[in-house]
Amino acid sequence: MSNAKVLPVLQPEAVVPCCPPLTAASLSEEDSVRMAAMFKALGDPVRLRLFSRVASHEGGEACVCDIQDVGVSQPTVSHHLKKLREAGLLTSERRGTWVYYRVEPSVLAAMAGMLAGAGR
Amino acid sequence: MSNAKVLPVLQPEAVVPCCPPLTAASLSEEDSVRMAAMFKALGDPVRLRLFSRVASHEGGEACVCDIQDVGVSQPTVSHHLKKLREAGLLTSERRGTWVYYRVEPSVLAAMAGMLAGAGR
Repeated sequence: MSNAKVLPVLQPEAVVPCCPPLTAASLSEEDSVRMAAMFKALGDPVRLRLFSRVASHEGGEACVCDIQDVGVSQPTVSHHLKKLREAGLLTSERRGTWVYYRVEPSVLAAMAGMLAGAGR
Repeated sequence: MSNAKVLPVLQPEAVVPCCPPLTAASLSEEDSVRMAAMFKALGDPVRLRLFSRVASHEGGEACVCDIQDVGVSQPTVSHHLKKLREAGLLTSERRGTWVYYRVEPSVLAAMAGMLAGAGR
């Protein structure tokens, strides 16, 4: 089987980014639960490094095989990538043997948008 | 004693924001530890709501008395505010009876800067 064959995209769990800048209004309880989960996903050093490997990889996409040398076991890498996917920060797609990860721009933009302008 | 008297500012623990956008380069281990601590501080719904209350309060500053109605006990509010202060996201200043909290712009700008442009 060719590695170039594109199989169906694995969808992340439904995450709809939200929320105006933090300076604009106090967050609702519901929105705070949703957005805190995204920040929490980046709140672990190994996850943040894995995420930065994907984000900085050529083409904004990386194979697990490209990014797993972060000093933890392969199952731990898989666990962290799953958490990032569940939080909506990464999307994944299997192509042949490997799974490729890509940053989800809308979620990142939502997080950056909340923080931007939050300091006055 | 007048409430208007300004007592010395309580310094947060030294936090020097860092790091280029996540698209630009893979994070070092050292930087990932530092930045993950900041994201982790916003990774709890109550802390995120408290933070949004400070950020959205008139003048970008809030007294504990203004923001503690988030549905948890006052000691829990204090605990979360301490975590936000330790992560460098808030600074605090005692004035008479009350402690006032303010968003630390440079740290927020560093976090937003890392995320901005991370989706391509």
